[in-house]
Amino acid sequence: MTGSTRPSEDELIARWFRPLATAAGALGLVDDCAAITPPPGHDLVLKTDAVASGVHFFADDDWGLVAKKALRVNLSDLAAKGARPLGHLLTLALPADWREADLARFAAGLDEDQTAWDCPLLGGDTIRSPDGLIVSITVFGAVPTGRMVRRAAARPGDSLFVSGSLGDAALGLILRTAPDRAARWRLAPAERDHLLGRYLLPRPRQPLAAAILAHAGASMDVSDGLGLDLARMCRGSRVAAEVALADLPLSPAAARALAAEPDLIETIVGGGDDYEILAAVRPEAESAFVATAAGAGVPVARIGRIVAATGEPAPRFSAADGRRHTFAGRGFRHF
Amino acid sequence: MTGSTRPSEDELIARWFRPLATAAGALGLVDDCAAITPPPGHDLVLKTDAVASGVHFFADDDWGLVAKKALRVNLSDLAAKGARPLGHLLTLALPADWREADLARFAAGLDEDQTAWDCPLLGGDTIRSPDGLIVSITVFGAVPTGRMVRRAAARPGDSLFVSGSLGDAALGLILRTAPDRAARWRLAPAERDHLLGRYLLPRPRQPLAAAILAHAGASMDVSDGLGLDLARMCRGSRVAAEVALADLPLSPAAARALAAEPDLIETIVGGGDDYEILAAVRPEAESAFVATAAGAGVPVARIGRIVAATGEPAPRFSAADGRRHTFAGRGFRHF
Repeated sequence: MTGSTRPSEDELIARWFRPLATAAGALGLVDDCAAITPPPGHDLVLKTDAVASGVHFFADDDWGLVAKKALRVNLSDLAAKGARPLGHLLTLALPADWREADLARFAAGLDEDQTAWDCPLLGGDTIRSPDGLIVSITVFGAVPTGRMVRRAAARPGDSLFVSGSLGDAALGLILRTAPDRAARWRLAPAERDHLLGRYLLPRPRQPLAAAILAHAGASMDVSDGLGLDLARMCRGSRVAAEVALADLPLSPAAARALAAEPDLIETIVGGGDDYEILAAVRPEAESAFVATAAGAGVPVARIGRIVAATGEPAPRFSAADGRRHTFAGRGFRHF
Repeated sequence: MTGSTRPSEDELIARWFRPLATAAGALGLVDDCAAITPPPGHDLVLKTDAVASGVHFFADDDWGLVAKKALRVNLSDLAAKGARPLGHLLTLALPADWREADLARFAAGLDEDQTAWDCPLLGGDTIRSPDGLIVSITVFGAVPTGRMVRRAAARPGDSLFVSGSLGDAALGLILRTAPDRAARWRLAPAERDHLLGRYLLPRPRQPLAAAILAHAGASMDVSDGLGLDLARMCRGSRVAAEVALADLPLSPAAARALAAEPDLIETIVGGGDDYEILAAVRPEAESAFVATAAGAGVPVARIGRIVAATGEPAPRFSAADGRRHTFAGRGFRHF
């Protein structure tokens, strides 16, 4: 409690969040609970992901962008499962010194994104944080019954695809804490801003969800780095993978940085926050997958293939000179 | 990150939480998402509630009890909606200095309670907390389609019931910070322990869910104090309520404390953490409600009635001497 002039939880909800609770099941946020029913013939896909000040974003980040990031990291998972969003629950832990202007920006940012992705607020909880803003969002999506695309379902012979480009956000994080690297990497201002922006605000690949649902054999989002996430897909599926580093899709900015500092391949493969989709596609579905993705306007790149695991079920990365790289076990550590 | 000897998130999940993920939709926690389908003819009831160290529990509380509290505050809401539990998602924000022994106790406590209430772990997220343990749980329950019992549906003429006893947890919180009050209140050791225990560990009224579903017109759980929560029911329903303070159900311990210190009525009505159920029951359903509750082994007490709102839609509390008390607007402040 920070003083009697602060709005109560009820006032806070009524003022900033009730306008966002547009779904019937949210009951205008006047109940303790919400209700949701998946469309007939559909399962509900569930995901919860939290972001905390000083861990997943900087204490001075705009709260409007924090709200968007918190929703988007969850939408990224739904897309990877082939699910379309139905709604979300919000748990907001507010620091003692929260300001109404920040909360207004938070609500406006959330409103903008939940409208863009048709994923309305269904309910939530507001508590006092021990220290710093923490946002935990649970999203609900729909897939046809039994059709959720699994992570642990890759098979030898599958082609491996990733959407968009890898490493941008991890490079952006470096630039955030060490701005002088931009000159060392010989980045144009627009390239620097591209990398910084990819860290600040993920771009969930929701438009790819239909292609994933229709054509992917296994799928997950890449949030902890390709090295670690592909290792998880391999381990879960009991397969290995072969990936050519030269085939990883890079933005012009990341390509320029890598040319200037070749060791950044560690960051590109081992960093996190890509929020791209990694999909294993059966050979017979490959052309349909590529065509559907192109129709959805999402670039996808073939980076390698799934092979039988003779030893450890893990990915093998090879450089253009034929040398093997090992990234397994790296990636973003959560604590 | 606190050192390379710490288990990774994957190891932590595999070791402590995979054994709890017994539902098919949890996919053994090897996927990024979980799937759930409500039973045919049922809606899914959603609730998310978080507890934080230093706010909802003490930093030195046993993590096993914290896990139980985090699940139980959510189960309490499901019970008040007439819903039976289906499963839950867990977001765990761990402080930098977390110890494996604490996490083992957390998992064991959660396991015990999720088994007792048949509410298995479906998925979750583990992050580093900026400061202190924070646990956010989202529960899923099932009610027959369209039958979720609302908070904002009380009508003039309804009788008001509460389960169990009120004020115990709020008095227990006082004892926790000021142990000498036990002597002033002339409590026997068992009475003191009863109050301390009610604060430490809520007792969700899940056995009452069937009676609520069948016979309550409106219902909610009392978590922020009867004064504030009944005010919310009145405001949402656009009705007033008349409650006789003498009719509030008190435990022997609370009754003894109140006799010693009459001003504690403010704490009993205005405190929080009761996790009892407040139900408005139509006159024709009253005897069936009472009988069903008795059959379920949950004591319920009639504390007053809903009346038409002539002025403000708010509760009026009257003492045995006829004086009016106002508690509205009090109750637990969340930040």
